Order: sequence, then structure tokens, then C-alpha cells
Amino acid sequence: MVTRKEDFSKWYLQTIQQADLMDYSPVRGCMIFKPNGYEIWEHIQDYFNSRLKEEGIRNAYFPMLIPESFFSREKEHIEGFSPELPWVTEAAGEILEERLALRPTSETMIGDAFSNWINSYRDLPYEINQWANVFRWEKRTLPFLRTSEFLWQEGHTAHIDEKSARERTMKMLGIYVEMIEELLAVPVFQGEKTPSERFAGAEQTYSVESMMQDGKAVQTGTSHYMGTKFAEAFNIKFLNQDNEHVYAHTTSWGVSTRLIGSMIMVHSDDKGLVLPPAVAPQQVVFIPVGPKKKLADVLVKIEELDRALKGIGIRTYIDDSDNSAGYKFNEWELRGAAIRIEIGPRDIEKDQVIIKARDEDEKIEVKFDELIEYVELELEKMQKRLLDKARQRNIENIYTNIETLDDLVAHIENKRQAGELPGWILAGWDGSEESEAKIKEITGFTTRNIPFDSYFEGENALPHKSKCIVTGKPAVATVWLARAY
Amino acid sequence: MVTRKEDFSKWYLQTIQQADLMDYSPVRGCMIFKPNGYEIWEHIQDYFNSRLKEEGIRNAYFPMLIPESFFSREKEHIEGFSPELPWVTEAAGEILEERLALRPTSETMIGDAFSNWINSYRDLPYEINQWANVFRWEKRTLPFLRTSEFLWQEGHTAHIDEKSARERTMKMLGIYVEMIEELLAVPVFQGEKTPSERFAGAEQTYSVESMMQDGKAVQTGTSHYMGTKFAEAFNIKFLNQDNEHVYAHTTSWGVSTRLIGSMIMVHSDDKGLVLPPAVAPQQVVFIPVGPKKKLADVLVKIEELDRALKGIGIRTYIDDSDNSAGYKFNEWELRGAAIRIEIGPRDIEKDQVIIKARDEDEKIEVKFDELIEYVELELEKMQKRLLDKARQRNIENIYTNIETLDDLVAHIENKRQAGELPGWILAGWDGSEESEAKIKEITGFTTRNIPFDSYFEGENALPHKSKCIVTGKPAVATVWLARAY
Repeated sequence: MVTRKEDFSKWYLQTIQQADLMDYSPVRGCMIFKPNGYEIWEHIQDYFNSRLKEEGIRNAYFPMLIPESFFSREKEHIEGFSPELPWVTEAAGEILEERLALRPTSETMIGDAFSNWINSYRDLPYEINQWANVFRWEKRTLPFLRTSEFLWQEGHTAHIDEKSARERTMKMLGIYVEMIEELLAVPVFQGEKTPSERFAGAEQTYSVESMMQDGKAVQTGTSHYMGTKFAEAFNIKFLNQDNEHVYAHTTSWGVSTRLIGSMIMVHSDDKGLVLPPAVAPQQVVFIPVGPKKKLADVLVKIEELDRALKGIGIRTYIDDSDNSAGYKFNEWELRGAAIRIEIGPRDIEKDQVIIKARDEDEKIEVKFDELIEYVELELEKMQKRLLDKARQRNIENIYTNIETLDDLVAHIENKRQAGELPGWILAGWDGSEESEAKIKEITGFTTRNIPFDSYFEGENALPHKSKCIVTGKPAVATVWLARAY
Repeated sequence: MVTRKEDFSKWYLQTIQQADLMDYSPVRGCMIFKPNGYEIWEHIQDYFNSRLKEEGIRNAYFPMLIPESFFSREKEHIEGFSPELPWVTEAAGEILEERLALRPTSETMIGDAFSNWINSYRDLPYEINQWANVFRWEKRTLPFLRTSEFLWQEGHTAHIDEKSARERTMKMLGIYVEMIEELLAVPVFQGEKTPSERFAGAEQTYSVESMMQDGKAVQTGTSHYMGTKFAEAFNIKFLNQDNEHVYAHTTSWGVSTRLIGSMIMVHSDDKGLVLPPAVAPQQVVFIPVGPKKKLADVLVKIEELDRALKGIGIRTYIDDSDNSAGYKFNEWELRGAAIRIEIGPRDIEKDQVIIKARDEDEKIEVKFDELIEYVELELEKMQKRLLDKARQRNIENIYTNIETLDDLVAHIENKRQAGELPGWILAGWDGSEESEAKIKEITGFTTRNIPFDSYFEGENALPHKSKCIVTGKPAVATVWLARAY
């Protein structure tokens, strides 16, 4: 078993396989989501669907195949996506007249539909969401984080004006913040993407970014304000209250199954998977301990306790397999069961169980009649502990006092020699693509996002940087720099 | 507005469009599921997921693209599906070494995975389900019922022996019966498919078939016993209790978004969509009536009643748009709202509302304090009425006394002249493909399925037919014949 420190990438691959979350497939870059992996996605879907319902946004489903001519209508969009598209060229024994792309995202298909459905200001806002598989033929792939086929939700909305569209863009980013922090216990950094990192065709892209245990960043969600670009490309016009035909303002926003990979990279440890209880397929695992001939009574008790926990909606599992208790302890640490409950004959005599939370070392004795309350509370506490621990790690790994590229290079080298993480760097940026390219070339770091103004206010305010880390010219923005997945 | 009697196909297309369930797309044979259409699918998913949970079957997700070499491993499978496959031949600017099919079904991909995951009898049964988009490039398409891309669930299981696999096959068919009859209020005919109508590669295929209002049949669900065919093709072997390596017995079973189309063809009428309350996106629609200046008070009351109904989980909608009440009545009949509640100023004086169920002509006055109870009960009653009505129609349109192909031809012609449906015919069959082909050639009817033995027993027993309707030879089975979608 390789540790995080020895080889983080290898540790990650080992962790997700031993936890039985996924498997590789015979198709390059496409993975299999096994039930334990897919269930995490189902919990994300349930949470997000309930948030959509509050917003009055309904689900729909659009065709996966997109005609080539559709992509060409928005110039930046086709340029951005064409290097990664798979194409259907034949069907039912015939060559197609026009190639069909496997969707990398559905702005074009949905833009065309919107142009048919939206006629008057009374039709707006028009807001829908889609859960779908999408394709981006990536050169280097990594399970969950970057795969040729992945699962996501994509929301698409059209509005009467910029204000209303911008409100939706920011509202959805805020919902992502809450979902990723509350459900996945992964803290995020909110901000605006620099122009070179924008979604292909967007006026503005906002992102939430999260720090992994190796200090690298993952873009965990994005929300885009499109202005009228897609409306112009797909002719999404409506009659406004002044009886004029004008273009709608559109947005789109999405999170994908890469959330699963990031969550694992944030919480898991050298013993295996650690999952926030809110999404753990097994919140409680019962393991009978003691001599085999006495286990029948123990199992009767376990089944009684199991029914009680299931009764209040806790996801439980009884491991009554033939393996030894020690083997099972190890197995369920690998698989990230949130709480392990051990019971043996002597515990039954004492009306108690032994409880161990996956992220704590201590074992606790809990009386039968306090069990339900204890488990409920401990799951909540564990959810919070994981978020707090990740927040603390973030604080320890951000650097706000690096002023030049030379300093950054030295910082990275010092950290490397100390066996520590280079972390994230808050830096001034002169607004040029050349400076971004230079940073990447020299250090491998990229601009993650431009923190919102609120990060520069109040108690733990980040400092505004006045000079560009590359050119020393006046900074137009203060940005996060980090290596990224 | 065309009626069912005038032109059933045209009526169907008009009904689904005016109910805002779907739209066409620029890709041949691929449709858009609009929110009202997609929500029906979500209710089907919720129901089926809860049944899967009871069975201990979990969801997973497998790659959509299937290498050509995979299909070739099971000879009947590739022969059955290859005429309908779309192929990805290029990706990211390069020609692929091997073509990748867009999955028409996932036996091959999942068979390959099973061969890696299943080693011992302890691993069995291995049972999973997948919700996915699938592709069959059909020549003639019809929204919901036959589209190039559609949504479905496909369950795949592997078992230690034939008995266990057959039990799963029949259990899932039984769950489909309950789902389609209870949730969609569509009665089904259960039976076994004839060899020529089997799933490509199956040992046996069982189906549920339903009768539409035009007398045609839709295969609404199938469950297949594969024997060891796919296990042999994909090397799904395990070590049994006698320490021998033997092949697993596998099954698969599925229902698709064609369920939505069939349900519509069974229940809807010349005024528009009729949906069983269990899946109706709008179970109750409130429509304020009366002079505009008095509507403010009415709306206050409506909101109060709306909260009460929502509080017990009823899906409600308040239509407070500027349209006239008459326009709204018509609109919500087109859209299949299960119950319409009208309230005007005079109703408020009388502490009452006016209620109309979508499938009944009568309007009922109901007091405020009886509303919740009334609505709950009426939704249940409507659900049952729709099923009963469809069952009655089935009874009226099955014919069990036609003994020869000449009689069948005469029957069809008589019905045509009377403006009545030819319906379904129970016929003897000598077991030959030639006879099936002959029936189809002469009448357009096809064998739907061979009813299970239980249909020939008890009070409403069907008669066993002793002679083949085509050849007059001894019948090896009694089959349903019908025209089909």
C-alpha cells in the first residue's frame, strides 16, 4: 500500500479501486462507475434536484448527437471544443451526410431549442437542467477527474436582461458552494476565471475551486454568463414589453462526476477511503466479533439495532461474512464506511456496542439505549470534522506574500526540499495572457480564479496585490495560482 | 384538432406536442424530452428504483461506447443489432483504429466487466441496473415509441444456476407488470416471445404487451433469460462449491421511455392528454374564475388551499396567468392535469370549490374543509378508473374464435368496414417461422407473445387453440396476434 506522501497519484488510484468505486473499461479513458461509486453521484443528484425544485427549475433531456454545423455557429465555442470531439460518421450501414458530435456540452442544441420556444418576455426566464453523459476526448485521463465520457448536470437559462441573467449565474454558483461544502465537506474558493480560462463562448465564467491534499487545485464547478453571444448565434429573440425583438441573455452552469474524485482526494487517508457521511453508501457497518459459536445471539441483537437505525433513515450494512473481524475492520476502512459498530458476546452482557468513526482513532463504548442518538449525532459531527479539517489544511497551504516569479520558484524549491506542499499562491496579475503563460511555463502553476471582493474584506481578509508577479506592472487583479488537475 | 377516430397517428403527434411533452430535434429520429415529458420518466425512475432497492439491486454506470470486437463475440447479438448501430470512427482529429458503437444495449460491455468481477460462487448472484441513453438507428421513428436515441433502464444479473437466473427473469417481469399497471394504469398481457421475436442472443425472452386505443400492441417491457450464451462469449466463469470452473447463467431486462408513449396512447382522449395521477406533473391545477377586480381575494384563498395540498405531497399548480378561464380549462385539458379546481368569489361565499377530474364530465362542488380528503381520494379513484377503463377496452377487443387465416382476413375487413378495431387475435400456431411470416405478409399482424399457462385457467380462462391458424397443423402454442408499434 503506497501512502499519500510517497506517491499521491498512485495512492489515489489504489484508494478508489480498493474501495470498489470504479473499474477501467476496454475503451480508452472511459471508466465504469461501480455501485459504490455511482451511489455517491445519486446522493449528489438528490441534493441538487431538491435545490433545483426550490428554484423552480425543471429537468429535461436533449439529444446527445449534435450536428457539426451547430458547433460552427458560435466561433469561440467550436474552437474551444473541436480538439476534443468524437464524431459519429456512419449509422445503420450508411455514411452520414453530416458528422454528428457526441456532446461535450449542450449550449448549441439547447440554444436551437430555445430559439423555437421563446417568443415573448412572458416566456422568460426560461430555465431548465439536464442530467447527461458528455464526451471530451482527453489525451491524459484520470478516473472521476478527467475521463473521455463523464456524467454531469448542465443548467441552461434565458433571461430578459443582463441583470436577471447575472443573478441566475451567481445564484447557481452559490448553490454549488453550499452543495460542495455541506454535502461533500469540501471547502471551495469562489471567484472569476481569467479570460484565457473562460468557457468557450462565455462573456464571464465563475468557478469554485478546491484544494486537494497534494496542494493541487480542482475546478469543482462553474457558472457562466453568456451575454447575448449564444442568443445571437442561435437567434434566441423575444418580443419585449416595448414590442421590440431583442436577444435574450443566457447562462449555463454545471458540476460533474469529477466532484467524486475531488472529494476523495480531499478526505481519504493512507488506510483507504474517507467519505462524508452525507454521501457514504455505508453510514454504519455492523461487525460481529467473538467466537463463532456465540455469534448467533450477537447477530440477533445486531439485526435489532440495524432495524432501529434503518428506521430513522441511516444507511446500514451488516457484515456477517465468514472473514475474520480484523479483515473486516480493514475492509471497511478501505471502503470508507463512516461508522463501524463492533459487538461481541461480552458487549451484549454489558448492553453496549463499540463504535469507531472512520476519521477518528478512538473507540467509544455506547449503551444500546443511547445508540440511535449517538450515531445520528456522530454522523453530523464527522461531516463537520471533515470540512473543518479540510479548511484548516487550506489555511496552512495558502501563501499571500510572494511578490515575484523568482520568489515563487524559490518557494516551490524550498517546499520540495522540505517535503512540503507548494500550496496555492495569491499573486498580482497584470491582466495579460503572456504573464499567465510565463507563470505556467516556469512553474507549472496556472491562474485558478480571481477571488470575489468579499475575500478581501473582514477578519481573515486576503491582501490585495498591487504588482504583477511576472512583470512588476500594476496588477489589474489578484489571482490564485496553483497546480491543477 | 383531429380525433382518434379520424387519424390515430396524427392525433397522437398533436396530443404530445400540445401537451408540451416533447419537441423534434435537428437530428433525425432524436427527440427532446421537455420538462412535462421528462417528469413522467422521473416518476417511473423513482418507482422502479424503490423496487430495485427492495430487491437489493444497485445502480451502476458503464461506458456508452462499445468496441466493434465486443459485439462480434456473440454471433446472434451482432447479427441482431448491427443493422441499427451508429459508429464513432473519429475522435479528437484522428481516425480510430477500431470503430466504437453507440450502445444499443450493454450485455457485451457488462459481460466483459462481469468476467473480471465474478470469481467464486460467493460473488453470485451479481445483480446491477443502469439508467442510460441508448441508440438504435431506426428507419421509421415515432416520438417516445421509436426514436434513434432513447432512455431506458437495463438490469443485468449473473447467477450460479439456471433456476436462480430464471427466478430473477420472472421476478423482474412481475415487477414490470406491477409498475405498468399500478403506476401507469396500463394493463399488460404477459407471455413468452416466439423464437423469431427473441432478444438477439437470449435463450428465452418474456414480454409484457399492451393494447393501444387503436388496437395496436406495444411491447412495454422485456425480461430475458440468456442461459450461458453471454457467459460463454465473455468468459463469465466462477469456481462453484465443488471447486469446478463453470459458466454463470445471466439475465437482462429493461423498460424504456416508450412506456410514456404507450401510456398516452392508452389513456388520452380527443380533448388532449390524460395521465394517471401517479405520474401527472400537475395533479391539481387551480383556476381562479370571475371578474378581474375580485380575483385578489380569490387568489389569497387559492394560495391557502394550495399550501394545504402541497403539504400532503400533492403536485399542484396555480394558473394565475392573464388568459381567460375558458382558455385555461382548455389548456389544462390539453396538458392532462388530473384535477381542475375552479374558484370564484361566489364559491368563497359558499365555502366551496368546483372540482373536475380530467376523465369525468361532471363538475362537483366540494366544501373547503373537505377538500384535502376529497382530492386525495379522487386521485386514487381516477388512477383506478383509468386502469379499469383500459381493461374493459382490452376485453372488448380480443377475439378468441378465429381459426383460419381466411377468417382473420375476413374479420379485419369486416371491422374496417364497420369502423371498428380488428383488435388482438388469440390463435393456434404450429411453431414455424414460415407461419409467422405468412400471417405478417397477409394481415400485417405479428405474434406478440405466448400467454402464460395461468391465462388458460380459472374464471376468465382463454381457450387453448389446437390447430395452427395458417397450416391447420397441430398447434404447439396459442399466441396473441396483433398489429404492433
